[in-house]
Amino acid sequence: SFSQDIDYILETQSALSIDLGGTNLRVAIVCMKGKIVKKYTQANPKTYEDRMQLILKMCFDALRDAVGLNCRVLGVGVSTGGRVNPQDGLVLHSTKLIQEWSSVDLRTPISDALHLPVWVDNDGNCAALAEKKFGHGKGVENFVTVITGTGIGGGIIHHNELVHGSTFCAAELGHIMVSLEGPECSCGSRGCIEAYASGMALQREAKRLHDEDLLKVEGMDMKLSEPITAAHLITAARLGNSKADAVLHKASTALGVGIINILHTVNPSLVILSGVLASYYQSSVQRIVSERALFSVQCVKVTTSDLEDPALLGAASMVLDYATRRTY
Amino acid sequence: SFSQDIDYILETQSALSIDLGGTNLRVAIVCMKGKIVKKYTQANPKTYEDRMQLILKMCFDALRDAVGLNCRVLGVGVSTGGRVNPQDGLVLHSTKLIQEWSSVDLRTPISDALHLPVWVDNDGNCAALAEKKFGHGKGVENFVTVITGTGIGGGIIHHNELVHGSTFCAAELGHIMVSLEGPECSCGSRGCIEAYASGMALQREAKRLHDEDLLKVEGMDMKLSEPITAAHLITAARLGNSKADAVLHKASTALGVGIINILHTVNPSLVILSGVLASYYQSSVQRIVSERALFSVQCVKVTTSDLEDPALLGAASMVLDYATRRTY
Ligand SMILES: [Ca+2]
Ligand SMILES: [Ca+2]
Ligand SMILES: [Zn+2]
Ligand SMILES: [Zn+2]
Repeated sequence: SFSQDIDYILETQSALSIDLGGTNLRVAIVCMKGKIVKKYTQANPKTYEDRMQLILKMCFDALRDAVGLNCRVLGVGVSTGGRVNPQDGLVLHSTKLIQEWSSVDLRTPISDALHLPVWVDNDGNCAALAEKKFGHGKGVENFVTVITGTGIGGGIIHHNELVHGSTFCAAELGHIMVSLEGPECSCGSRGCIEAYASGMALQREAKRLHDEDLLKVEGMDMKLSEPITAAHLITAARLGNSKADAVLHKASTALGVGIINILHTVNPSLVILSGVLASYYQSSVQRIVSERALFSVQCVKVTTSDLEDPALLGAASMVLDYATRRTY
Repeated sequence: SFSQDIDYILETQSALSIDLGGTNLRVAIVCMKGKIVKKYTQANPKTYEDRMQLILKMCFDALRDAVGLNCRVLGVGVSTGGRVNPQDGLVLHSTKLIQEWSSVDLRTPISDALHLPVWVDNDGNCAALAEKKFGHGKGVENFVTVITGTGIGGGIIHHNELVHGSTFCAAELGHIMVSLEGPECSCGSRGCIEAYASGMALQREAKRLHDEDLLKVEGMDMKLSEPITAAHLITAARLGNSKADAVLHKASTALGVGIINILHTVNPSLVILSGVLASYYQSSVQRIVSERALFSVQCVKVTTSDLEDPALLGAASMVLDYATRRTY
């Protein structure tokens, strides 16, 4: 029947998603219902040429696999760190977290190589789109999402729409400053929440403690060759390392105060934390909001994302939403 | 002729404006073109009863004078500190800057007493409305205003509309925190820009220096009985008092960093400073933005308001805009 045909087409309609982060370059095939059918991960190359080459190679591999997986790819969605002009598909400017990544036209080379339409937006903005379409943001008119990975990204939904701002620099929530001095940030300033609470910031502090021989405590299993990460800091704190605990307390406080600044600016009804550290931070952020925010926002709900991969899913949603509108 | 009649009616159409601040209670008669025809100022009483009584008394006086001034008052606009529900004309909650000023219905008693329609909004939001109708915000789609008086208020215009937020707590820009610790604020938290850069904060620091006999410098004319204010701090700094200068430097930095947080959240194309300290802060805020903000917002224009009294004019604009729409 006709309606079965439509269902079948919708099921096979898919998007290719690309996420360019401070550490990894990831590509995924995402189907209409928001399921990640297949995912590819590589280290994000340090130069523009290597990065563009790897993006195209990974996309070609994914497109080949998509045929066998019965996924009809309708277009490409790109999520990237940095300020993005989504109308033109341009990366305007990035911090040193992603090098050689300013004034980059992403749409033209990808579209020319793959013969597919291409959408581009900032990674935090993509995460917000994903929450809106597939996550806790469904049906919520005003919410913000803060995604903690290598850096910290954010997205703001106001009246059901992303806030991009006058120069596409809105929702750069990782660079909200909570100290006049404070640790140096990848953006060149100091005291940004990214410099206190991101994966990179915690790794920096873990390494510092490790270098001073203050990280390892009784009961902690650490191989000599193991790279030091944020996870070690969290483990050490749980096993009673008070210095590790102090670092994490400051990181949580900084993130909480930064989020209050967002509440006092746009006053969303919901805050969604995502990224690997989300569940770690959730309860302290909720507590700090209840302690330090204005009475009228103290009860805002701070939740953690249920989505496997908000940035990739949001990048896909730009393709799928457009495709749906076009189909009907 | 008919068009002359309309012009005459428009000229005489006016609003009664009320502004409730941390220090003063002011009432004004404002004509259609945004001219303040007459203004009345009293100290803002400390209790709810005294305040409501004085509001009504000042309104009656103004309404009587309006007749002689050929001003036909169409309604009352109220600008007040605190979180306001403008749909219901309620003050939801205030900091201790205005005492006994939470869960207050302003519309009903004023409307009942004066037999006029009443509009209410937060003072910073009113300031933004004034800039939009009469000031630098005319025709600007996205801008923010920060008004420095006894406290610090703010208003955000996004897509030509005020941002009120989900619990009417958006644009509480005075309570953006730029320090995890920092000076205590009227809201109960610490490190808010209001606690660093408001008139009240500067007066507190001036008094502190004065008590330690560190305020007065050569060439400074100060009577013994004179109350110590922010103005003394500025004068002392200009005359070479390095301690006064350090306080003002920190205040400017805090304000600048707070404004960058706004830029990284909503990314307006213009920042308008108003209030008595606006011209003092303008150049340092512009410099700090160019030094510490993300590249994409470094060039945002920071300007000072040309308006005599943004909060009063914005309160009037709520009345006048409605009246205009009704007339035509
Ligand atoms: Ca963003
Ligand atoms: Ca406000
Ligand atoms: Zn930063
Ligand atoms: Zn405060």
